Amino acid sequence: MASDISGASLSSEDLKLQFAPFSSALEAGFWHQLTQKKLNDYRLDESPKCIKGYYYNGDPVGLPTRLTLEFSAFDVDGPTPARCCPALGMLYNTNTLDAFKAVDKKALLEKEAKEIWEAIQSGAALKNPSVLCRFILLTFADLKKYHFYYWFCFPALCFPEGLKIIQPPVILEEVFSPKQISALQEAYDGLCIKRGITAVPFFLMKYADDAVQMALLEDWEITVGVYDPCTLSQHPGWPLRNLLVLLAKQWGSKLDLVEVLCFRDQTLQGNRSIQHSVLFQVKLPELPNNSVCLKSVGWEKNPKGAMGPRMVNLSECMDPKRLAESSVDLNLKLMRWRLVPSLDLDKVVNTKCLLLGAGTLGCNVARTLMGWGVRHITFVDNAKISYSNPVRQPLYEFEDCLGGGKSKATAAVDRLTKIFPGVSAEGYNMSIPMPGHPVNFSQATLSQAQKDVVQLEKLISEHDVVFLLMDTRESRWLPTVIAASKRKLVVNAALGFDTFVVMRHGLKKPHVSQTALSVPGSSLFSNIPGHKLGCYFCNDVVAPGDSTRDRTLDQQCTVSRPGLAMIAGALAVELMVSILQHSEGGYAVASSSDDRMNEPPTSLGLVPHQVLDHYEREGFSFLSKVFNSSHSFLEDLTGLTLLHQETQAAEVNHKPTRHKNWFHSS
Amino acid sequence: MASDISGASLSSEDLKLQFAPFSSALEAGFWHQLTQKKLNDYRLDESPKCIKGYYYNGDPVGLPTRLTLEFSAFDVDGPTPARCCPALGMLYNTNTLDAFKAVDKKALLEKEAKEIWEAIQSGAALKNPSVLCRFILLTFADLKKYHFYYWFCFPALCFPEGLKIIQPPVILEEVFSPKQISALQEAYDGLCIKRGITAVPFFLMKYADDAVQMALLEDWEITVGVYDPCTLSQHPGWPLRNLLVLLAKQWGSKLDLVEVLCFRDQTLQGNRSIQHSVLFQVKLPELPNNSVCLKSVGWEKNPKGAMGPRMVNLSECMDPKRLAESSVDLNLKLMRWRLVPSLDLDKVVNTKCLLLGAGTLGCNVARTLMGWGVRHITFVDNAKISYSNPVRQPLYEFEDCLGGGKSKATAAVDRLTKIFPGVSAEGYNMSIPMPGHPVNFSQATLSQAQKDVVQLEKLISEHDVVFLLMDTRESRWLPTVIAASKRKLVVNAALGFDTFVVMRHGLKKPHVSQTALSVPGSSLFSNIPGHKLGCYFCNDVVAPGDSTRDRTLDQQCTVSRPGLAMIAGALAVELMVSILQHSEGGYAVASSSDDRMNEPPTSLGLVPHQVLDHYEREGFSFLSKVFNSSHSFLEDLTGLTLLHQETQAAEVNHKPTRHKNWFHSS
Repeated sequence: MASDISGASLSSEDLKLQFAPFSSALEAGFWHQLTQKKLNDYRLDESPKCIKGYYYNGDPVGLPTRLTLEFSAFDVDGPTPARCCPALGMLYNTNTLDAFKAVDKKALLEKEAKEIWEAIQSGAALKNPSVLCRFILLTFADLKKYHFYYWFCFPALCFPEGLKIIQPPVILEEVFSPKQISALQEAYDGLCIKRGITAVPFFLMKYADDAVQMALLEDWEITVGVYDPCTLSQHPGWPLRNLLVLLAKQWGSKLDLVEVLCFRDQTLQGNRSIQHSVLFQVKLPELPNNSVCLKSVGWEKNPKGAMGPRMVNLSECMDPKRLAESSVDLNLKLMRWRLVPSLDLDKVVNTKCLLLGAGTLGCNVARTLMGWGVRHITFVDNAKISYSNPVRQPLYEFEDCLGGGKSKATAAVDRLTKIFPGVSAEGYNMSIPMPGHPVNFSQATLSQAQKDVVQLEKLISEHDVVFLLMDTRESRWLPTVIAASKRKLVVNAALGFDTFVVMRHGLKKPHVSQTALSVPGSSLFSNIPGHKLGCYFCNDVVAPGDSTRDRTLDQQCTVSRPGLAMIAGALAVELMVSILQHSEGGYAVASSSDDRMNEPPTSLGLVPHQVLDHYEREGFSFLSKVFNSSHSFLEDLTGLTLLHQETQAAEVNHKPTRHKNWFHSS
Repeated sequence: MASDISGASLSSEDLKLQFAPFSSALEAGFWHQLTQKKLNDYRLDESPKCIKGYYYNGDPVGLPTRLTLEFSAFDVDGPTPARCCPALGMLYNTNTLDAFKAVDKKALLEKEAKEIWEAIQSGAALKNPSVLCRFILLTFADLKKYHFYYWFCFPALCFPEGLKIIQPPVILEEVFSPKQISALQEAYDGLCIKRGITAVPFFLMKYADDAVQMALLEDWEITVGVYDPCTLSQHPGWPLRNLLVLLAKQWGSKLDLVEVLCFRDQTLQGNRSIQHSVLFQVKLPELPNNSVCLKSVGWEKNPKGAMGPRMVNLSECMDPKRLAESSVDLNLKLMRWRLVPSLDLDKVVNTKCLLLGAGTLGCNVARTLMGWGVRHITFVDNAKISYSNPVRQPLYEFEDCLGGGKSKATAAVDRLTKIFPGVSAEGYNMSIPMPGHPVNFSQATLSQAQKDVVQLEKLISEHDVVFLLMDTRESRWLPTVIAASKRKLVVNAALGFDTFVVMRHGLKKPHVSQTALSVPGSSLFSNIPGHKLGCYFCNDVVAPGDSTRDRTLDQQCTVSRPGLAMIAGALAVELMVSILQHSEGGYAVASSSDDRMNEPPTSLGLVPHQVLDHYEREGFSFLSKVFNSSHSFLEDLTGLTLLHQETQAAEVNHKPTRHKNWFHSS
């Protein structure tokens, strides 16, 4: 059986023909692309996939005969590198290592060999000889560890008695004159041009003393040529094997001796050198008459020389940052394999999130966003990290508290980068102007509060989702107004001691003509469309004012059960993700089995929203009135003062009807 | 008005008596103790508290006259340092800075001055002259920043016309002979011994050329002595002021001149030196007849020399690690001020927690435990940190993944220490033997599995609460058995994709005689007592086996919504805290409005618990059978095999009755 060689030159007595087997050469790009395919396309699909490799006959002496698979292997119809021959194969990628091990390698080889055999029997291989170079690649990709298990097979049909050559192979230049060599070269190039490719894998030729002619296989005349990737002087490479079976089938009865040219096309010192091609004559056995498929070989040995799979650990040679990125993606993409195939991860990952507050809630929201693969996170906070923070605010450590404490906004960014270098995070150490917290307001120069308002407006414009994660009620007011005006999705979380609220704000219809955009209209009475939902302030009966003045220590700190911020922070992000996955996004209908929701949608949002109108009309001059006034200014404006008066006047225990809605109208 | 002095010596023309005021000397220990008192005792109580300071008459020349408050200030009945005089005061600690600023300082001073005046009027000050040295301390402690605002007041009654001395004070040694000085010394010491104290604040004395006698105030004769903390040669210290008013009240009509000895008791170069005491005569004005309280002074100037409060920022001079500890405590103790006064924080803080699993759940549980102030946390995990971990496992960072990844158990410990240096954390990089995961078991030597079992038993023994936070079902089996046997509270958390379970395991009654311990008996039918609750495996109908074999990638990873682990981890800790706060701890009744719970408690736990019996009887030889067997061993043992057979035999769609309970019996 002619299968493997050791590379030692053949003794003249031993005229058994041996072939240099292919070595698999799988580039990192191949594994990368396999990872992507597995994650995004194949998922749990184990059915065989057609892939494409290539081999080259211009390697310098000493290199093993390689079949290369790279990034492009999955693009079967894509181009093959110049001067290389393509080889098609079947990829069997299993879901588990156990399945990989359990695959019946013998059966797999026989199945592929039979297809080659049948193509030879039917003559299809004559028309399309690439079938002779088919391969099998069995893989298991452990994408958690970046370990890739694989086993290559280049199925070769075996003549029962092996093959004999009548004398050792000779180097072409020992037989051909320079003129003949030059003619061979021209003829091969001519055939390539005729076929529109840069390498013809199999060909026939006949030659006279000073001339060479070429023809396709169909036009059989004298010498058979093979584009030979082997560099050994005494051995042909693997592609010849199945070709000889084809020859035996087609002409075995007519010929018992065939001349073979192993066409090798090196470039030596800048000069093309086909003269190192090898020439020999092989005795072509007659095939058994019964047309039973020949025995086959072809599974690649592992580096230890034993039959067995190989493993490549790419985690060590990949750029760690890149590795981190793909590992994070992996965990998310796995959700789509079985559980939520329709999950649109891009919508989540590409969402730009603005976190107002980088304290207990802000840290937990940022951590959960990272878990969802969100890349763009911006913090706004004006506080410094104090000693009590790190045990509750999971982006800070003891060291961050020293020397008066780092700024939370910038320290949070540093931490995100340490957790995941691929994140794009920014921090703004700034205050958010608040109702009832007076600001200096001068007509001549931009006050700090004015600058803060401008900066906040800019930040809200540049982001998709605004998270309200501050520790006072009134600090939520300005971002609520701006985000409502800019039609940004707002997710709000606030903590009590053992209670919390996590909610989205209603998303008003766009400013432009409503008919031009597909904003869903009112739905059934039992549900409220997203554009009619209220905000954090919509059910209040007291306007936001300075709630920090005169607070005792336990009122200043967020005194809550420590687990609460994690729960609320996580829920806020999960709420955002759920909204993003809804086909209508922020306009998604709020469905609820709560009786209170079973009122007609007109019950919310029919009142003109005084605050938003004023903000959009008067801008900062309106805001400065709000910042510098006590509760009464906003309460007068929104009708709460009137509501209180009416309620008092009634002097009965009736519930006030729903009061005016601040920001939203139908 | 005689109040303040510059330290310049008195001109002979100006014979107005001026007193060196006290400087407040508040040691860090005082602020520390105030912090503790505020957190644990006072909380929101603003009522005045009695405190104690002291002053000393042995300072070297140049030191200001100090009234010192230290750690011991709150222990009014405690000892005073040797050779020091005590001074009692009232502490007014406000809850807010606004309240601190708003206090009516004039009224406060007048109130205290009136009490001194009345003690003088009634003669009570004669019996107990310490009332003459009372002080007021007004404070606001910003415990979040370790900023302490304070203002001292040493109320002193003022003679309307001031006080005149007839000639400048003289140093004792200029007037007394060495013999007289020595006699004075002996007489003072004798008086102290007689009173059983080391310093007498006020006394009277008469002296002849070579002899000195002493007597108490009541036995008035000639010279009045005052234990004088001042070191200035021309001025007495503050304690004399109110004494002179007392003298004027008592003897003002009889005397118009009184000799004063400012008794100073330094040690100079190893020798006692009372000869630097000061002697002078003062004209004692007659007090107005109307008995209206005299005008008073006494609020201390701030370092700038203006009337105003002082602030000390202890955050800069405290040991940062100590500061971190008290800051963490602060946030927790604040809960008790208003919201949960009965919260027993010590029970939580001192709980030793064993976390089996340092992955997504383990990290979040550890973070929440830190938030609750738990100091003793131990991790067990055998995994290394991979690139996908940091975004979901909040104790790890990108750097921890490099070079193959750090061990989770030890990296988690490092991170906890970075978050809070006061934590006492340990990590064990070890595996937990699992049913259906065969182990090598040799009779001759301890196998690794045996060592792991021994280690796990030891760890569970040493902790109070065991958290099951692994990623397989079967890894929960062994710790469940051991913890049940050792009667340790088990909190179990497990994640699905968008579902999770967080539960406590039932805590069996102790091994010892049940009557000897107060384990609550069965309660009403509607609730299940803690010792009859089941465990994670109690409702399973399949025994735990190797669930990792043949799992695809999405089954190997914990594929869950990223927010879920934070929610489940936080809830697991909150559950633990709630159980610890229950008076019966792990034996707390499970109350529920769920109908399913309305069965008699006997419906759970009546079956003999075969597993626990076997474990306690056979130990590792039983365990090794479990590890090395497939499901069937445990299923046979627990009767599940029989249950399956019966269910199949019935071949109808009836629900099986509740099957055997593995670990618990009544």
